Amino acid sequence: MNALAPGQTALPSFDDVLDAAKRLAGRALVTPLLNAPLLDAELGGRLFVKPEPLQKTGSFKFRGAYNRISRLSPEEKRAGVIAYSSGNHAQGVAAAAREVGCPATVVMPKDAPPLKIARTRAFGAEIVLYDRYKDSREKITEELRREKQCVLVKPFDDRYVIAGQGTVGNEIADQCAALGAAPDAVFVPVGGGGLIAGSALALRHKLPKTDVFACEPEHYDDTARSLVAGERVTVDATTPSICDALMSPAPGELTFALNRRLLAGAFVVTEADVRRAMAAAFVHFKLVVEPGGAVGLAAILSGRYALRGKTAVVVCSGGNADPALFADAIRDAA
Amino acid sequence: MNALAPGQTALPSFDDVLDAAKRLAGRALVTPLLNAPLLDAELGGRLFVKPEPLQKTGSFKFRGAYNRISRLSPEEKRAGVIAYSSGNHAQGVAAAAREVGCPATVVMPKDAPPLKIARTRAFGAEIVLYDRYKDSREKITEELRREKQCVLVKPFDDRYVIAGQGTVGNEIADQCAALGAAPDAVFVPVGGGGLIAGSALALRHKLPKTDVFACEPEHYDDTARSLVAGERVTVDATTPSICDALMSPAPGELTFALNRRLLAGAFVVTEADVRRAMAAAFVHFKLVVEPGGAVGLAAILSGRYALRGKTAVVVCSGGNADPALFADAIRDAA
Repeated sequence: MNALAPGQTALPSFDDVLDAAKRLAGRALVTPLLNAPLLDAELGGRLFVKPEPLQKTGSFKFRGAYNRISRLSPEEKRAGVIAYSSGNHAQGVAAAAREVGCPATVVMPKDAPPLKIARTRAFGAEIVLYDRYKDSREKITEELRREKQCVLVKPFDDRYVIAGQGTVGNEIADQCAALGAAPDAVFVPVGGGGLIAGSALALRHKLPKTDVFACEPEHYDDTARSLVAGERVTVDATTPSICDALMSPAPGELTFALNRRLLAGAFVVTEADVRRAMAAAFVHFKLVVEPGGAVGLAAILSGRYALRGKTAVVVCSGGNADPALFADAIRDAA
Repeated sequence: MNALAPGQTALPSFDDVLDAAKRLAGRALVTPLLNAPLLDAELGGRLFVKPEPLQKTGSFKFRGAYNRISRLSPEEKRAGVIAYSSGNHAQGVAAAAREVGCPATVVMPKDAPPLKIARTRAFGAEIVLYDRYKDSREKITEELRREKQCVLVKPFDDRYVIAGQGTVGNEIADQCAALGAAPDAVFVPVGGGGLIAGSALALRHKLPKTDVFACEPEHYDDTARSLVAGERVTVDATTPSICDALMSPAPGELTFALNRRLLAGAFVVTEADVRRAMAAAFVHFKLVVEPGGAVGLAAILSGRYALRGKTAVVVCSGGNADPALFADAIRDAA
């Protein structure tokens, strides 16, 4: 299950992450590390936030998409790219394709947040909607890909996508070094596992004593279960969740091959934890974080990981939050 | 009116801003320049946001406060500092005093946003509340200052406070150079005028072709009126405003001496403009901006300044927004 089939794309290495960092220089924002002294005082530790909502398109997804799409041959660029996504990978692919100058088609569930559908369209992509609970997005996408003879940009199970997302972890390691901070742990939201796999490549290389933890929402704890089982486990992906960005039923093949080797463990949080984390990000970091982007912060603020006396970095992975849901989450913030 | 009395604190120079930048290195966050391609497409120009909500304490005010307080003599540090503020300078002074290791007293209007009062207290300051419409904050502060024999940290009319805030403009100039962007104009929220005065010192030095514009909320357009009159004009400061951070009745003496020479003009925006700008910052920059911090963005989004074909930088100066007000402002965002 975990061995790679012959001819399959190779696993990315730390060098692939460094190479992606060069390619993204001047294209993606090097997001800062944020710290909130009042929250540190409450938690009795030192917490840094890596704010990917500030990234171009509002999530880390632009990094991997650009690293992949910018490597297409001139012929491939003419035919364009296709992707399936609930919204953040969609925007990343659409924006990267526009910068590279190639057409993009994105297959999105029709119940994706309207804001994400509208933004993906605004970035110039052609949108094809499907029913998340009836249709097979893989089948729809494959039919369109054959028809258009274009390149599929996978959301996570791709060497260059993983390496691109890994620039987040690479920046964290460099920024911690500049601050003289040695984090005990880094917390990363996990859907298919691309962001954490790439980031862990860089973090384990540069900060070998730092634990990297996967964070998932309830019902979508496939990586947590897979780490325990030692092989890829699939969960029922029909339960509704506010964490639309993390509703993947199973870890990727490439991502899990890396994550089973590189991760220290996993935390699973509830929707109530997630809402409280969104409110805390509003108050302490002045940051709009979408539900799926807040599961790492939720793991710490819920007390599942005790920060007392420790230093940690949390990746807030995206900020494309629905206004009504966000307004509701912050109402009781103080 | 505009000449400086003999013996008064000297006006800051560009060198004072550079000196402040050195002092703040590793203390204040170098906030990034953010860009949102979809908003650029809507506006037909290129807009960068300097997000000071991400700054320590949630606004630019930490910069000036730390630059001032870190220069106190050991004796002055023992006696501590005092300040009056509706909330952002309060937090800046409280946090800077804590880092320097000296006590702080802050005189705040009792109708200041509860979040700002709570955060100032959490930073370790002693809070003294007063009635904005009855009491004289200057009188209360002066009595306490004499009693405690401590140092008043003025909110804007101070050489080192202005120079510290000016590091915002200095960073903007350097970041634009790194991006190869030559801004036509920079828009800065104005209360007493410290942020814009210091920033204009750096911007006019490094980017002499760039216009620097003051942005103010309706009813508190004292700098706009003063620029027209050529001397400091006082407005009625009893009208309620959601822009609590900008409710100063008149420009400072030092700040206006600089601003009358350095600014290209001023824009005045309505509360409806401000709410729409807060919603746009939520959607496009994933940033929590408080009303007073959003007046610069409001000047552009309201069409008062036409961005078409131009490049501009907007300073969003603070993010200590009341949750209910913020929730209300973003409800119609899309």
